Amino acid sequence: MAIVLGPNQYGKAETRLVHVTRDGAVHEIKDLNVSVALGGDMTETHLTGDNAAVLPTDTQKNTVFAFAKEHGVGEIEEFGLRLATHFVDSQPSIHTARVHIEEYTWERLSVGGTPAPHSFQRSGVETRTATVTYDGTRAWVVSGLRDLVVLNSTASEFWGYIRDSYTTLRETTDRVLATAVNARWRYASTEGDFAKSYAEARRHLVEAFAETHSLSLQQTLYAMGQRVLENRSEIAEVRLALPNKHHFVVDLSAFDLDNDNEVFFAADRPYGLIEGTVLHDDAPDAGLAWSE
Amino acid sequence: MAIVLGPNQYGKAETRLVHVTRDGAVHEIKDLNVSVALGGDMTETHLTGDNAAVLPTDTQKNTVFAFAKEHGVGEIEEFGLRLATHFVDSQPSIHTARVHIEEYTWERLSVGGTPAPHSFQRSGVETRTATVTYDGTRAWVVSGLRDLVVLNSTASEFWGYIRDSYTTLRETTDRVLATAVNARWRYASTEGDFAKSYAEARRHLVEAFAETHSLSLQQTLYAMGQRVLENRSEIAEVRLALPNKHHFVVDLSAFDLDNDNEVFFAADRPYGLIEGTVLHDDAPDAGLAWSE
Amino acid sequence: MAIVLGPNQYGKAETRLVHVTRDGAVHEIKDLNVSVALGGDMTETHLTGDNAAVLPTDTQKNTVFAFAKEHGVGEIEEFGLRLATHFVDSQPSIHTARVHIEEYTWERLSVGGTPAPHSFQRSGVETRTATVTYDGTRAWVVSGLRDLVVLNSTASEFWGYIRDSYTTLRETTDRVLATAVNARWRYASTEGDFAKSYAEARRHLVEAFAETHSLSLQQTLYAMGQRVLENRSEIAEVRLALPNKHHFVVDLSAFDLDNDNEVFFAADRPYGLIEGTVLHDDAPDAGLAWSE
Amino acid sequence: MAIVLGPNQYGKAETRLVHVTRDGAVHEIKDLNVSVALGGDMTETHLTGDNAAVLPTDTQKNTVFAFAKEHGVGEIEEFGLRLATHFVDSQPSIHTARVHIEEYTWERLSVGGTPAPHSFQRSGVETRTATVTYDGTRAWVVSGLRDLVVLNSTASEFWGYIRDSYTTLRETTDRVLATAVNARWRYASTEGDFAKSYAEARRHLVEAFAETHSLSLQQTLYAMGQRVLENRSEIAEVRLALPNKHHFVVDLSAFDLDNDNEVFFAADRPYGLIEGTVLHDDAPDAGLAWSE
Repeated sequence: MAIVLGPNQYGKAETRLVHVTRDGAVHEIKDLNVSVALGGDMTETHLTGDNAAVLPTDTQKNTVFAFAKEHGVGEIEEFGLRLATHFVDSQPSIHTARVHIEEYTWERLSVGGTPAPHSFQRSGVETRTATVTYDGTRAWVVSGLRDLVVLNSTASEFWGYIRDSYTTLRETTDRVLATAVNARWRYASTEGDFAKSYAEARRHLVEAFAETHSLSLQQTLYAMGQRVLENRSEIAEVRLALPNKHHFVVDLSAFDLDNDNEVFFAADRPYGLIEGTVLHDDAPDAGLAWSE
Repeated sequence: MAIVLGPNQYGKAETRLVHVTRDGAVHEIKDLNVSVALGGDMTETHLTGDNAAVLPTDTQKNTVFAFAKEHGVGEIEEFGLRLATHFVDSQPSIHTARVHIEEYTWERLSVGGTPAPHSFQRSGVETRTATVTYDGTRAWVVSGLRDLVVLNSTASEFWGYIRDSYTTLRETTDRVLATAVNARWRYASTEGDFAKSYAEARRHLVEAFAETHSLSLQQTLYAMGQRVLENRSEIAEVRLALPNKHHFVVDLSAFDLDNDNEVFFAADRPYGLIEGTVLHDDAPDAGLAWSE
Repeated sequence: MAIVLGPNQYGKAETRLVHVTRDGAVHEIKDLNVSVALGGDMTETHLTGDNAAVLPTDTQKNTVFAFAKEHGVGEIEEFGLRLATHFVDSQPSIHTARVHIEEYTWERLSVGGTPAPHSFQRSGVETRTATVTYDGTRAWVVSGLRDLVVLNSTASEFWGYIRDSYTTLRETTDRVLATAVNARWRYASTEGDFAKSYAEARRHLVEAFAETHSLSLQQTLYAMGQRVLENRSEIAEVRLALPNKHHFVVDLSAFDLDNDNEVFFAADRPYGLIEGTVLHDDAPDAGLAWSE
Repeated sequence: MAIVLGPNQYGKAETRLVHVTRDGAVHEIKDLNVSVALGGDMTETHLTGDNAAVLPTDTQKNTVFAFAKEHGVGEIEEFGLRLATHFVDSQPSIHTARVHIEEYTWERLSVGGTPAPHSFQRSGVETRTATVTYDGTRAWVVSGLRDLVVLNSTASEFWGYIRDSYTTLRETTDRVLATAVNARWRYASTEGDFAKSYAEARRHLVEAFAETHSLSLQQTLYAMGQRVLENRSEIAEVRLALPNKHHFVVDLSAFDLDNDNEVFFAADRPYGLIEGTVLHDDAPDAGLAWSE
């Protein structure tokens, strides 16, 4: 019996890169949060502190900034692929790289109806994400979004569930259904029009949420994943985590007031959490795509 | 010399009210965070625990929910006025009420280009706020917004400042200027079209930010306040708090790369904080409008 | 009628300074968050962008770091006084300075019961605060603490309050009382043993919370302030903001279980918020002590 | 090719349970955040919204509260085992349960040196965690802690690392090393004195951090895991995630001041993130212990 080193990785997390493209007077902006995790021949640094195989996290940060200048940013999937490939291919001691990027969207401001050339407002709607993993041979691209908060004020029911001695919930055929969509989808390939795929996957998620008459949040989840897969052949698998953000009908009967699903208390905690995967049964092997 | 009770207030904070208007199949939604603070004959509850003058915070919460049903919500300024007036006018022991409301905006979802009847997405852009204060005789309305993050990628300079023995900053004629607008404005009256005033004040703030060639964030702040006052006669005073969210040009010279204001590090802390008031010199007395 | 500049200030917020005292092998550590706000002849920078009167926030940050080296840190009240005095006395255009400091406490680690010479653990208990204001002639010192979460599991009642048509709360003679103490106290002078005053004020706040059989959180608040003033003659005024962190008894009757104040749901929102001031009736004038 | 349902689970997250033990006048308190995730025959609820196999998350919440009353809480590992076993063993459609619990520590207050019978202060130091997984046959217990922030003000070096064209970092033989320990350890069995194991594992983590002269944070990580395994035979595997919370030496040379590791800027982002596993090479199979 001996004590040994198991799986490990290291990297620079949350490098906040803002890139401005200045083509004449009209600027464009990209606002990213880049996290790198590398794996490789790391036994010595753990056992003896010999860092000969370690590419410092400071250098990783420098590389993020330098690559933004040298190669531009482009779509975050492309930027992630470029970085992940670089770390593994340029360093013999580095065998895997995972680059996780969050993108915060900015909209161009208008002044008197005219688009402003260099003025922007950060859109608070969802954060776009990409996770690229590379092992020296293959690469995997997972894209996604988080914190897209959506709500149906009706067309949601919940009944027919198990009853046991701890059940007090009453069945309902009309409730508010609200969630913060946390979605990730795995591409079958590392090539593609990622901007379009993102926009379309997002659209299908939202439309499926709106159009599904829901008997359970699980049903809505599956419908959302299914819709994406049916419409986007480049996507092999969708993973969703949907908190059930409870909106409780306030009992106003003590005040002689009806409350026909009009006045709700929006609770913070606890909340339901529904997690599920929808995929093609012949999806290519996920490999390291989902490793953390 | 004696120990005495000084200024005091109490109330229910952060009641999370969601109100759905169900006029037929097409729903509307209002999502509010309501905080109440009351003052009055509170000496006994502090000195002896006699609560005869205390309207419980639980009752305040109930009132928020019940009023949403009885009277609807309307604009948050109106809802605040209704609540503040009620607490003071209905309870002899309550002499002042301040109701602070945050409104989180939701946008209607579209499905295939058609507006969805009962499906919404929370817009992450700024939070709209209103603070209404009432003392039994007069009421004051302050509206505002917070967390509206805007950025100019050029047209900002900073030079000509004091130099002392702790100065290292270099002057610049081209920098990124980014801030999270935190604005409040005081109305001259308690009547008005608050929805329109909000939309227009917001528009003028943003347009002034975009159009001002800035020599200091103070100059931009003043321009924003001035623009609102010039265009909205119903507004007597504007208070702004603008963090200077630093975007530092990354030095890429070690990698033989120029960086002509293209690649920035977006820093979290420290940040500058610029606070200022712009008002009409004949503005009516602010009274309790700004009391906290 | 003209548009004019009203009250304004600016400064560097949240400079995160960690200072290590290295007297031989045994180190000491101070961990501060320093925010500076300056006021003065700032009309031109607002109206025209002329910065001749502006001491840049970058320089303020440098001064914080340099002063830590030149003069050491000492108690945060002393560090604040040193900085505030410097900014006003060294710059003719700066007339007021307010320095707000948060201190995060670290405890020395022990190894096998022996204090470690240079190893520390951050104590998560309350944050100590100080706010120093200086106008070129006088200085004011306000100290405080925040986020000290305390709870009495009994000895708290709430009854005898106003009942109106929106009342549903039931009276209780036994409830949990929990709060996150947010206290600030103003010293009568700018000299003193601030470390001892802090420790003693904190002790009296906590002991008064524990010893007060509470009929209302207001009564507990007053008792806390009173205790400090009775025991610490250097303190002229105490301001407290106490959220009532509700702990609701869970109704287990549906499961044939009693719940005699044993099982609680700790709610996030809404919460009560009780704010009050306790002071000596002959306290010296507060001047700018509490200005924000 | 067909679209199918992949891995999925659901449950109630973040039920905030506070339990008071009232044995006479002296009370004890437990403050927990309980999250449940169940898996089983969930295909129908996803595909058709038939909820016949679904134990509602509301019922899960009720069970948490009721079990606290019926069986007490005890150590969080025991409470988790009791809950996980119940959900699977009582419901044929539920095949796996994972219960994750966070415990917030409270200390008894003292008044004049005497322990108070029913008054407590929340200790802000680390959060204790436990994750119990049960599949109807076997159970796994993982305990841990997070947010234990520790710092060595010396005895940390970093040199001898890879240099490439993006390297600018200078080697150092004396730096501050600070991290927020996030540790989880897997027990070989589901029986044991979990309170003692926790206290001892925590002690060994902290002591190893303090005693290791560090050449890399990886080396410190390994030493921490190794120390736990060497001393606690009931623990089979330790997983650590250690952010490298950078403390940068401030360059004061422009002010003619030396800075021999005395004055630091504590940065927020980016930060290094070092993750690793240390285990016995004959550790029992982890099974579902680490599944998420």
